Amino acid sequence: MLRSTIQRTVRLASRAKVGSGAVLVSSNLAALRSSPACMVSAFKYSTKIPPKLTAESYPNIERLPQYKKLTQEDLSFFQSIMSESEILQATADEDLALFNEDWMRKYKGQSKLVLRPKTVEQISQILRYCNDQKLAVVPQGGNTGLVGGSVPVFDEIVLSLNQLNKIRDFDPVSGVLKCDAGVILENADSYLAENGYIFPLDLGAKGSCHVGGVVATNAGGLRLLRYGSLHGTVLGLEVVMPNGESMNSMHALRKDNTGYDLKQMFIGSEGTIGIITGVSILTPPRPKAINVSFLGVDSYEAVQKVFVKAKQELSEILSAFEFMDLNSQKLAKHHLKDVIHPLEDEYPFYVLIETSGSNKEHDDVKLETFLEKAMEDGTVLDGVVAQDETELRNLWQWREMIPESSQAGGGVYKYDVSLPLKDLYSLVEAANDRLAEKDLLSETDSSKPVISAVGYGHVGDGNLHLNVAVREYTKDVEKALEPFVYEYVSSKNGSISAEHGLGFQKKNYIGYSKNDQEIKMIKQLKSLYDPNAILNPYKYV
Amino acid sequence: MLRSTIQRTVRLASRAKVGSGAVLVSSNLAALRSSPACMVSAFKYSTKIPPKLTAESYPNIERLPQYKKLTQEDLSFFQSIMSESEILQATADEDLALFNEDWMRKYKGQSKLVLRPKTVEQISQILRYCNDQKLAVVPQGGNTGLVGGSVPVFDEIVLSLNQLNKIRDFDPVSGVLKCDAGVILENADSYLAENGYIFPLDLGAKGSCHVGGVVATNAGGLRLLRYGSLHGTVLGLEVVMPNGESMNSMHALRKDNTGYDLKQMFIGSEGTIGIITGVSILTPPRPKAINVSFLGVDSYEAVQKVFVKAKQELSEILSAFEFMDLNSQKLAKHHLKDVIHPLEDEYPFYVLIETSGSNKEHDDVKLETFLEKAMEDGTVLDGVVAQDETELRNLWQWREMIPESSQAGGGVYKYDVSLPLKDLYSLVEAANDRLAEKDLLSETDSSKPVISAVGYGHVGDGNLHLNVAVREYTKDVEKALEPFVYEYVSSKNGSISAEHGLGFQKKNYIGYSKNDQEIKMIKQLKSLYDPNAILNPYKYV
Repeated sequence: MLRSTIQRTVRLASRAKVGSGAVLVSSNLAALRSSPACMVSAFKYSTKIPPKLTAESYPNIERLPQYKKLTQEDLSFFQSIMSESEILQATADEDLALFNEDWMRKYKGQSKLVLRPKTVEQISQILRYCNDQKLAVVPQGGNTGLVGGSVPVFDEIVLSLNQLNKIRDFDPVSGVLKCDAGVILENADSYLAENGYIFPLDLGAKGSCHVGGVVATNAGGLRLLRYGSLHGTVLGLEVVMPNGESMNSMHALRKDNTGYDLKQMFIGSEGTIGIITGVSILTPPRPKAINVSFLGVDSYEAVQKVFVKAKQELSEILSAFEFMDLNSQKLAKHHLKDVIHPLEDEYPFYVLIETSGSNKEHDDVKLETFLEKAMEDGTVLDGVVAQDETELRNLWQWREMIPESSQAGGGVYKYDVSLPLKDLYSLVEAANDRLAEKDLLSETDSSKPVISAVGYGHVGDGNLHLNVAVREYTKDVEKALEPFVYEYVSSKNGSISAEHGLGFQKKNYIGYSKNDQEIKMIKQLKSLYDPNAILNPYKYV
Repeated sequence: MLRSTIQRTVRLASRAKVGSGAVLVSSNLAALRSSPACMVSAFKYSTKIPPKLTAESYPNIERLPQYKKLTQEDLSFFQSIMSESEILQATADEDLALFNEDWMRKYKGQSKLVLRPKTVEQISQILRYCNDQKLAVVPQGGNTGLVGGSVPVFDEIVLSLNQLNKIRDFDPVSGVLKCDAGVILENADSYLAENGYIFPLDLGAKGSCHVGGVVATNAGGLRLLRYGSLHGTVLGLEVVMPNGESMNSMHALRKDNTGYDLKQMFIGSEGTIGIITGVSILTPPRPKAINVSFLGVDSYEAVQKVFVKAKQELSEILSAFEFMDLNSQKLAKHHLKDVIHPLEDEYPFYVLIETSGSNKEHDDVKLETFLEKAMEDGTVLDGVVAQDETELRNLWQWREMIPESSQAGGGVYKYDVSLPLKDLYSLVEAANDRLAEKDLLSETDSSKPVISAVGYGHVGDGNLHLNVAVREYTKDVEKALEPFVYEYVSSKNGSISAEHGLGFQKKNYIGYSKNDQEIKMIKQLKSLYDPNAILNPYKYV
């Protein structure tokens, strides 16, 4: 029985013939801003339409008068501690757009000054000066964030970490990597690959985002299911506080119970209480074998059943468990056009499973056994297993192309939420019901603004991406979705931002995920560490 | 080649005939205080010698006058919010020793009042009252700590969590467990076992220690190598703050990027800034197969080589990597007398490797392949693999009996430190050199106070246990070791407390592991959350 089932999946994989030239979203992302420091004109944003000034898009948000405006004297100070090449000033021809605009081009600040220090000591001097002078500062890593957290809102000084980018140390016995915050994630991972290790986090923007930035935003990404969150893997941080003091906690120890674990506060703090300048992180051995399987199931119930089975059978080698609904695949099919979908028939839900382990043969057997059982008992209705690297990437694309496909019909409202697993998909159903009720939804009738609300995401992490694909952005759709989506997530004790953070976009919605006591304590910490509120103002909390 | 090597290891295992009645240390620990709430007279301490009052042992530490002394009025208040059975008072015959003494019997407080609330609301009322009245409070879990952190120093009120002990919720799909802080670790694990899951932390005291206690002390234990630290696995906490406010952050989400991760501050805070009343934690599927191998190698260099190989070959199934030096095994042999050591010849170092995975057959092959390679290239000189559960436990005992064996000759000075892996064993050599230099050391000459300084511990976690086995405690030995050991650890950027915490014992040594800036920030947080310093005074920082 085993052989025949597996042969069937193999045959299906071959039949699928995926891989005929479609582009992976992650590759797109990786290519973005690969050298923001160079300010190359070939720089690619996610859209060609330049953003309006944030100050114009959000006229109700005003520049706070407590912040000093930049003077010639301030510039002279910065020139006294940094070289010419480390200071970029706006001119008539140069509005510093690369540093003022986020890559989604939703926001645009008006900073006149970008500082690109090369040493921690410089950062310390800059912050001490800005704190004394009440000059607002926006720390910026790779500037790949999705919530407007890394660009100025008004005239804040941009402090870019992109010239603080050295690997400091690697211990091949313990796997502990120490590096500057400005090291690009992909560079860190390539360095580790040479040593047989892997960075315990991966994400689409790896070609541009910084190690310091992923820590500052507590990025989740694709390896969380396997290697856990940064709160567990980061062993030490070096942070310059708003008053210029440096907290050197670059520890390399897995166990250290001497005092509160201070570094934890800065993981996910989005540059609001300190600037991360160095990261010490535990890296695991690089897996030798990777398998990917793409399955069709008939309900969200079945998705959950497959997840439980996968945890039991694949256990220590399970490294990704993604689900997609039928509508998301319809959009992707429409977008990918000539590429044949991995599964011949349509199913209400699809599951992508990835395993990674140290022994290919063992992993194959585990995956085969798991699939055989799941197909025999009817939980899984059909499936394919990638036979090589190309097929593997092609299976992934049916998951990874969804964001782009959702946008292709005109636009997309995106929500990145966490929900208890049993409720994960109910938000998509509720959103569709609501949009239908308001008569805004039709897959075919182009007079309706909404094409469909699709759901997909990291089941293994309880992380749903709700994408509402629209023909055009309208106030009616916006009103139907917000605060409805946030209220729904809140009613299920979910998180309105699973991995993207709060930034500028979600600053005012924190109350949907955190209670009054938590918000009070968050504000308390902000006041404690940044009493003049010079760091990343108008954002987070 | 594979078969013959493996047959050899199997043969060796059989020859070893371990398991003839020796007692596992972990079983001893587990039996301790299994129902502290009952105050049974059969309660077992680690020694029969009752401790002196801490106030007598440390006459230079004085009761701070800022704390109010308990009055009849205070008692009346507590009686108004709690039932008779929830309040224990000292009497002429009952000095509340079970709550005043730590289980090592090194410390003894003089509390006259133990409160054992059954609800979070009661805890909130108690703390609000104590904060207003400046009554000092010691939170107490299973009271199995090793640094005197869970018992009063003077007359602090003991707030025991042992009646707040309900499992609140378990989601068999996500594996998220929510429970009261007072649930005994072993009970939580047994509950999870019934559902096919495992608590991601295990330690000797599991039969007595509380889930809330292990979180409050950031316990490391035996599963850290595999499942990571509590900073990664704890998803939510409920904490009553010193002013009585409750921080309800019982989230069950793997991803939630909305604000600073407040719960992290309380993991490892040892009851100094809040009392943990509820824990939400992600639990992994229970492994189906466990293997244990015991190896002999000729140097600490070789131990490190075997570790790197084990990470590469055993990778995702490696769940423990322990090392022991020859002297530690000599002490254990002397103590276990009739039990035959697993390896016939003596080796300078021994390694215990445990794997746990989802497929016994695969794990066996991985372990065999690994051992074959390691023996063929001469890194491992000899080794055995346990063939069944009994042999498995018997191999573990040669690691687990070391603490008891170290003490058997008269006494032991124990240090629990973290060091960079390459320096891990150098501390043991340095300690032996120093003791020899001072002419305090002889294995055979009973006129010398020290028998030997032995080293063993969790290589996988960079965690060394240095045990200095002595015939008697003398001022000379103490002076030779302290602050020498702490200075040595500090010079290598290690931690003077890897997993035991600071408590009362190491309060004054934090400066060896944390710099001035870190200590300042730790004190800042203490003042922020507990401005009246009512929680767990005279400890931590």
